[in-house]
Amino acid sequence: MSQLKGNVVVGQSGGPTCVINSSLIGLIREAAQHDALSGIYGALHGVQGILREELIDLRQEKATTLDAVAKTPAAGLGSVRKKPTTEDCERILEVFKAHDVRYFFYIGGNDTSETAHIVHEMATRDGYEMRLFHVPKTIDNDLMVTDHCPGFGSAARFVAHAVMGDNLDNRSLPGIKIDVVMGRHAGFLTAASVLARQHEDDGPHLIYVPERVFSMERFLEDVATVYERLGRCVIAVSEGIHDAQGKLIVQSSEVDSHGNVQLSGSGALGDLLANVVREKLESRFGKLRVRADTFGYLQRSFPSFASDVDLREAEEAGRAAVRAAMSGKHLHGSIAIRRHEGDRYSSECFVTSLESVAGKTKTLADDFIEGDNDITPAFVDYVRPLVGELFQTARFEGHRVPKKLT
Amino acid sequence: MSQLKGNVVVGQSGGPTCVINSSLIGLIREAAQHDALSGIYGALHGVQGILREELIDLRQEKATTLDAVAKTPAAGLGSVRKKPTTEDCERILEVFKAHDVRYFFYIGGNDTSETAHIVHEMATRDGYEMRLFHVPKTIDNDLMVTDHCPGFGSAARFVAHAVMGDNLDNRSLPGIKIDVVMGRHAGFLTAASVLARQHEDDGPHLIYVPERVFSMERFLEDVATVYERLGRCVIAVSEGIHDAQGKLIVQSSEVDSHGNVQLSGSGALGDLLANVVREKLESRFGKLRVRADTFGYLQRSFPSFASDVDLREAEEAGRAAVRAAMSGKHLHGSIAIRRHEGDRYSSECFVTSLESVAGKTKTLADDFIEGDNDITPAFVDYVRPLVGELFQTARFEGHRVPKKLT
Repeated sequence: MSQLKGNVVVGQSGGPTCVINSSLIGLIREAAQHDALSGIYGALHGVQGILREELIDLRQEKATTLDAVAKTPAAGLGSVRKKPTTEDCERILEVFKAHDVRYFFYIGGNDTSETAHIVHEMATRDGYEMRLFHVPKTIDNDLMVTDHCPGFGSAARFVAHAVMGDNLDNRSLPGIKIDVVMGRHAGFLTAASVLARQHEDDGPHLIYVPERVFSMERFLEDVATVYERLGRCVIAVSEGIHDAQGKLIVQSSEVDSHGNVQLSGSGALGDLLANVVREKLESRFGKLRVRADTFGYLQRSFPSFASDVDLREAEEAGRAAVRAAMSGKHLHGSIAIRRHEGDRYSSECFVTSLESVAGKTKTLADDFIEGDNDITPAFVDYVRPLVGELFQTARFEGHRVPKKLT
Repeated sequence: MSQLKGNVVVGQSGGPTCVINSSLIGLIREAAQHDALSGIYGALHGVQGILREELIDLRQEKATTLDAVAKTPAAGLGSVRKKPTTEDCERILEVFKAHDVRYFFYIGGNDTSETAHIVHEMATRDGYEMRLFHVPKTIDNDLMVTDHCPGFGSAARFVAHAVMGDNLDNRSLPGIKIDVVMGRHAGFLTAASVLARQHEDDGPHLIYVPERVFSMERFLEDVATVYERLGRCVIAVSEGIHDAQGKLIVQSSEVDSHGNVQLSGSGALGDLLANVVREKLESRFGKLRVRADTFGYLQRSFPSFASDVDLREAEEAGRAAVRAAMSGKHLHGSIAIRRHEGDRYSSECFVTSLESVAGKTKTLADDFIEGDNDITPAFVDYVRPLVGELFQTARFEGHRVPKKLT
């Protein structure tokens, strides 16, 4: 294949992450090193910006701006949740032709990869030569092929610390605490709460992921067992937990009366579980202190708390997309991460096909899940290198002063 | 007054903070420097530990443990929410006498100060000489006399960053976002969300504190106005907002059907406001993306994110309590912080009376509140030095590529 000359468009799509801009900046900087690439344009709010011809010239941005945007959470170009129709894809191609865009890079989840796929098929049919690459990002970590996704490590880092602090809080003022974590179909992020455990009796004491059927009866028994043993209980639960019929717990209960239940950006599931625990277990234990927190959007956009490994890999994924496009080996593809063997963590990027990623979802492997309420050491080994350094909590040794009264 | 010899008991009480252990360790280290103080005992779970004679010998803890506990959020000794009865106070005094405890330091909110006050009156009546000092802590910042409370700066730091990230998220995927912040009677923590603003159109665009009457009609108008101007709206709201009759918004609505509504550890208020916005504004704007997050306990115990100023002042407050007790100038008192005049922030601790703090609550001064939905620059000047360094968000300059299509 001859080196294709022309302009670049890059866009961001789907729910933001803490490192999606690191991929963007890596991509811009790598693109700037290739003479075949002239204009480097950013599409505002992903495909929406292309449809509206709202493009910005990224070559005019200062180096200091690029450095600072790389560390800033959420999508610097703006994001969008939109699956383009056939007409949209025609319009996208029209805009690409008008601006001599020969390279399209789309940073996003598996829907994003699908969009890239459709646009590429259309371009091929039209005989318009171009390269299309998908750069993965998702806090859910649910993309196929890749070992893990940029964005996951930082979100996992946040969840691990949030539950770590919450466990300390719960140890100070004992009770039953439910923490609701993002992840509708995949439990990776909820599973990462396991990293909060540093001492033998640390929470989370129970972890529920959507890969297993959630039974309210078993849940109540689990909580009662932990509470009896420790006098407290910290629980991490995925927003996507469901019953045996696949019906979401938050939708299957009469207790909930919220109008428009959506999973994220609502405290409904946490409140529902807290109310059930209170209602069913107080007859057994007396008055209980039960609380629920839903971590919400903080998981994906809390500033200055990204995993350094994640930031670095996200940047590398952006660069790898440009290198793959310029290599002449691929017309299109999706960037994936391969973990190297060995004790010291290292990884590299490679190219997989858009088809292998588009519209598919990975979930937690069976050997990452322990029974129906815990996570295995194998998952800890998997996730530990991705989150960066963890805070070390400390407690007193606590030598008792002998009692003098009866 | 002659130097009183004997043992020390220190306890922690009320909702944990990120720096309450810094006060504890400062206090232990200062106490270790005074020969008149022999045993340094920690009461497990505050007064409950004294009542049960559950004391630990803090002199036996390693220096490395003290260093590490100082940085660990939540109460290292365990906390309690308990207002002792007269009988309890008698028992407390009995335990103090049995262990020759002549110094009692209680780290907590204004209830804590009240407990110290009662115990001291009882000891005086009994002719048992002792010193009692209250060391302030609260994320709510609602103690009288002091310029601000240890614990507030770190919680304010968390809230500022959480809203900062949420504003970036909202800018990426525009919509209406409601963030519920702790603070039932005092709006200091909610007001601190103002620090998230770094660019002209940054959120929070609206801030509601419990010091003002909350009107649902005005709220909806405020949101509509911002949404019309920016196409998005980020709102920070105190959990304690109430109507003109003082009734909490979360309790005054029929929409809410949660059994046992408590303010923290529940997403009820956020969900209620989101539902009302959706219900009332969609007729005007069409389908809206409305979400709510309740920051919950993360605000007070998220690890590794404390304000360095707050950590330092908390330690100093602990040390100041011991110095005050040993100075011979006070039989009892509460430690307060005085802010020095001048451009560069500095502060010092002083002693105020237990009565001046006990059972009283400070709220946001009028000159910190702008209208009924915003915070003044005077508050920014007040809070800015307390939160440590803030993350700097960055955005592209965004030079538009000229359009080529119609």
